[in-house]
Amino acid sequence: MASYPAPIQDLIDQFRRFPGVGPKSAERFVFQLLRGGAEQVNALIRGLGVLRERVGRCETCGTFSEETICNICADRRRDRALVCVVAEPSDLLAVERTGEFKGVYHILGGLLAPIEGVGPEQLRIAELLERVRADSRQPAPTEASGPTADGIREIIFAFDSTIEGETTVNYIVRALAGSAVRLTRIARGIPVGGDLEYADPVTLSDAITGRRELANAAVGHLPIDARSNACEH
Amino acid sequence: MASYPAPIQDLIDQFRRFPGVGPKSAERFVFQLLRGGAEQVNALIRGLGVLRERVGRCETCGTFSEETICNICADRRRDRALVCVVAEPSDLLAVERTGEFKGVYHILGGLLAPIEGVGPEQLRIAELLERVRADSRQPAPTEASGPTADGIREIIFAFDSTIEGETTVNYIVRALAGSAVRLTRIARGIPVGGDLEYADPVTLSDAITGRRELANAAVGHLPIDARSNACEH
Repeated sequence: MASYPAPIQDLIDQFRRFPGVGPKSAERFVFQLLRGGAEQVNALIRGLGVLRERVGRCETCGTFSEETICNICADRRRDRALVCVVAEPSDLLAVERTGEFKGVYHILGGLLAPIEGVGPEQLRIAELLERVRADSRQPAPTEASGPTADGIREIIFAFDSTIEGETTVNYIVRALAGSAVRLTRIARGIPVGGDLEYADPVTLSDAITGRRELANAAVGHLPIDARSNACEH
Repeated sequence: MASYPAPIQDLIDQFRRFPGVGPKSAERFVFQLLRGGAEQVNALIRGLGVLRERVGRCETCGTFSEETICNICADRRRDRALVCVVAEPSDLLAVERTGEFKGVYHILGGLLAPIEGVGPEQLRIAELLERVRADSRQPAPTEASGPTADGIREIIFAFDSTIEGETTVNYIVRALAGSAVRLTRIARGIPVGGDLEYADPVTLSDAITGRRELANAAVGHLPIDARSNACEH
């Protein structure tokens, strides 16, 4: 035996497709399953089956959802005029955890990375542009003017602070040139607990440019809750 | 949505049971599956099913096997008198890859770690002692005396060079006290490409004690191939 039995090797190969999993980790995963026995394997098979059967994409924002429209897009209390664009559903969850954002989302499914072959057609960029266009074509709803009455008012880009993130912002900003939608991106700065001394010059420069007034209302800062966004800066 | 849909969260929780997998990695595994689509999920379900149905333990050595007796234990050319004791099937594979070892194996299923609650009864130590006892009870086979004719002659411990490895060696050596079986362990020393300068004193001390004669046959060194083991040092 210079190699594992075929069923083990097959599973090792499958686990290696997971991000960040090398041959050693994949091996340990399979061993853990063999130790865990039939019960653990059955639970995993069941879980995968449920995932396959029940989880799809929200037709509007593209996040993972058990319904055709996800909870957030279906929630009438959310501000549909304020769209936060993120790369992945996990980023949506990170923004949700702040409890600060009352708008809706758009999931791109990644960031532009031409070198790795990720172009605009691999991402849900066309769908975002379509959302903006569809919204501007729609007549104002007949119901009393709520926060959703006036189409998309602002798009907030919340991407990783990387080359790919920058490239993606630039691409979409160019694609939306001429539209009336306000385009913003989340602030760069020193994270909580971060050392000023070790901050790179670009971050620190952006943190200074994006400095916030301490005494009164926000200046040079774009609050993201629906109430504040109702007023024009 | 301050959390994922239940089917996603369930799978995340299941993947977190894998060794070294935290919440972020587990999340990325599930996303990878959702991106991979039904095809990847189906392949994984199939692979897990095959693992559950077809892979068991070799009745003799305890390694993972599709047969009741694994290829190595069933191979008549292997020297059954020479047993290499390892913690896990992955260690067996590591020894096999050297191409040097012509004996058979015994998998313990782990190493003694009393603090973590791994005692002798959690490991296949009783089975090892039973193998030694059974072998010594057996009359010499009637066939022409081959290398397997005289019961277990030597047990080589090939464990991680850790406290747990040492503890396990000591425990089994004590349990086998009085038996005629020769007990050895793989050498400690400077690994290929290792810096002498950075070697710890215990390793270096063991490397000096276990030094090898360069000009002629091995002195103070126990070769592991069947031929050399036939002669007494």
